[in-house]
Amino acid sequence: MEQSIKLIFERRSIRKFQDKKIEEEKIELMLKAAMAAPTAMNYQPWEFVVINDETKISQIRSSLTFAKSLAPLVICVCGNVGGVSRLVKDRFWVQDCSAATENMLLAATGLGLGTVWCGVYPITMYVKRISEILQLPTGVIPLNAIFVGYPAEEKEARTQYKAEKVHFNSY
Amino acid sequence: MEQSIKLIFERRSIRKFQDKKIEEEKIELMLKAAMAAPTAMNYQPWEFVVINDETKISQIRSSLTFAKSLAPLVICVCGNVGGVSRLVKDRFWVQDCSAATENMLLAATGLGLGTVWCGVYPITMYVKRISEILQLPTGVIPLNAIFVGYPAEEKEARTQYKAEKVHFNSY
Repeated sequence: MEQSIKLIFERRSIRKFQDKKIEEEKIELMLKAAMAAPTAMNYQPWEFVVINDETKISQIRSSLTFAKSLAPLVICVCGNVGGVSRLVKDRFWVQDCSAATENMLLAATGLGLGTVWCGVYPITMYVKRISEILQLPTGVIPLNAIFVGYPAEEKEARTQYKAEKVHFNSY
Repeated sequence: MEQSIKLIFERRSIRKFQDKKIEEEKIELMLKAAMAAPTAMNYQPWEFVVINDETKISQIRSSLTFAKSLAPLVICVCGNVGGVSRLVKDRFWVQDCSAATENMLLAATGLGLGTVWCGVYPITMYVKRISEILQLPTGVIPLNAIFVGYPAEEKEARTQYKAEKVHFNSY
């Protein structure tokens, strides 16, 4: 395994966190990593809400069925589909914001942090509730809630590679 | 900048490639990286078509408006939304396959390769044409076409971080 790509295999979903704050510099590096992702026509249709308010984190946990981790930080990656050039943004924002999210998770791993990606969009009930909690304006849609913290569980690096998922030249 | 996350900033869209084949081990590492991405409920709703047939690559180039690079390899990441558990797969496959794609692009960067992500889904005309070229069965949807090769252009590492895209605790 090449050293430079180890990070990709080391990222695992972490759901148990230490009771320890995340340094601001690490949060900024995660956001810089997110905003290094490619986007369709370089529209960068993203917004990030960084949440460390305990009440809001608790509300988010109550709103999402599978988001029960106790974490000191949640980052909500949102698509901004308002404004001009609506067509491209509308069509590709989910892909663009998902690539940004994956970059953010990988950066967190490289910085010694753990994360778990909790889906919000396109579950209507989740979108509505998270939008209320974060006071999102019309046209800004929450894609996910990423729980972040110093890990309190260890998981081995892995791939879930399966040869039968790979096809050559045609399916 | 932490050494371990440099890769994320070094990935740039590369559209000029050398006339040089990609080693099979590198292709396999890219696919292993892709299949190390997280997926909703761990459904892994992905399929990968690896294309090195020159005729097929030429057909793909003709079919996509913005995919004009001459590359020795194209990987098409597809969502497999057929089968059981249709609901979760239907809803999250784009996000899951986008995270896998980003992992693949980062692995390529780490292996000295360049890539450009050309969107297919949800442009109906592109989906239809790529499905024909790759003979995809019903329920397998092409998300993108990733052009891969040894780079014939250099681009500096960067982020497109903008502070105004970041909000704290509410928008």
